[in-house]
Amino acid sequence: MRVGLLGGTGIEGRGLALRFGAAEVQVTLGSRSPERSAEAARVCNEILGRAGVRGAVNGEMLAESDIVFLTVPFDKAAAAVQSCRADFRAGQVLVDVTVPMIFTGGRMDYLDQGGRSNAELLAAELPAGPDLVGAFKTIPAHVLIDTKQPLECDVFVCGDSRQAREKVMEAVRLIPSLRPVDAGPLASARILERMTVLAAQLNRRYRKNGARFRVVGI
Amino acid sequence: MRVGLLGGTGIEGRGLALRFGAAEVQVTLGSRSPERSAEAARVCNEILGRAGVRGAVNGEMLAESDIVFLTVPFDKAAAAVQSCRADFRAGQVLVDVTVPMIFTGGRMDYLDQGGRSNAELLAAELPAGPDLVGAFKTIPAHVLIDTKQPLECDVFVCGDSRQAREKVMEAVRLIPSLRPVDAGPLASARILERMTVLAAQLNRRYRKNGARFRVVGI
Repeated sequence: MRVGLLGGTGIEGRGLALRFGAAEVQVTLGSRSPERSAEAARVCNEILGRAGVRGAVNGEMLAESDIVFLTVPFDKAAAAVQSCRADFRAGQVLVDVTVPMIFTGGRMDYLDQGGRSNAELLAAELPAGPDLVGAFKTIPAHVLIDTKQPLECDVFVCGDSRQAREKVMEAVRLIPSLRPVDAGPLASARILERMTVLAAQLNRRYRKNGARFRVVGI
Repeated sequence: MRVGLLGGTGIEGRGLALRFGAAEVQVTLGSRSPERSAEAARVCNEILGRAGVRGAVNGEMLAESDIVFLTVPFDKAAAAVQSCRADFRAGQVLVDVTVPMIFTGGRMDYLDQGGRSNAELLAAELPAGPDLVGAFKTIPAHVLIDTKQPLECDVFVCGDSRQAREKVMEAVRLIPSLRPVDAGPLASARILERMTVLAAQLNRRYRKNGARFRVVGI
């Protein structure tokens, strides 16, 4: 399994690179800029203590990755997908981790986009070929990047292709103390994205930064 | 603390009666019918092995309860509140546990009611006096009523009165292995109600009936 990060130089991208890198998965960290991706990969490898993460431009990353995580802010996601349209391949799985969250009136709030989740809006932008899966939406980037902290939570995986969901769940199982939970069709992202907003609100109220979820009873 | 159940003869009402009764809280199980509430209370007391639950008509229950759980199906909740308008008292806390969930196209789905949660719709029906709090929305009634099963999860408590939220959180703490989580204003019910739909979907997918949530990291 080869994991790629589209727009991977931010905290979410580097966090996933570190977690998959530590699990000895081949990781390509993509960016529009070869310098920035090389620098982010260098920092990751320094933390990992081995050359597990390679920096590349997004097109090159897409050519060599089976599962690609879209790790840009939610309002940049559609443009990022558009700019790479020609480079996606059939059978590739694109994983949307974004959450449309805005800070308004002194609190984090969900940005309703006509009732549809950000994942569904992205699916409409995607060319035929890759399958879109929503996952890692409820995992805080701050916890992901702090490799000393065990994750100890569930990753909800949703998408309209069962096969693509299963590929992502298989990837999740490689990371210690993470459990994949099959959350069904892509439309479940409507719930998952809102759960992340609840977690952000809890972080503020409890003065923490790592609120995340575990399902009991399944 | 005296707990009342408005429309308490169903599985949710009896479940809460058993959990609070076992915690030695004084419980009044209300119904429109004195016979049905007496019978439900009798069954609860048989399970508890002591007379911890008293049956009454709703009006009588409201006269003697500090915290009242509205334990009717979501589409009966507004009518139940309306029919008891005259009996609510100032300082009383009404707890909405309902979730607007429908079975459609072979799957459980959230019933969107113009963007507002069922809790918010109920608040609009309530006379001045009692405070409305949303809680226990994500706890499955089947688990609640099975007193041999530890709950081991979180109860999300939301409401626009901080004092009322705190009263309900205090009540939650009386039940073993339940943790109250302060979920902020009543509008948070928009997220919590959807989480219950996700849990119901997980139950179907995983062939379980007790999916529920715990927050890690707070």
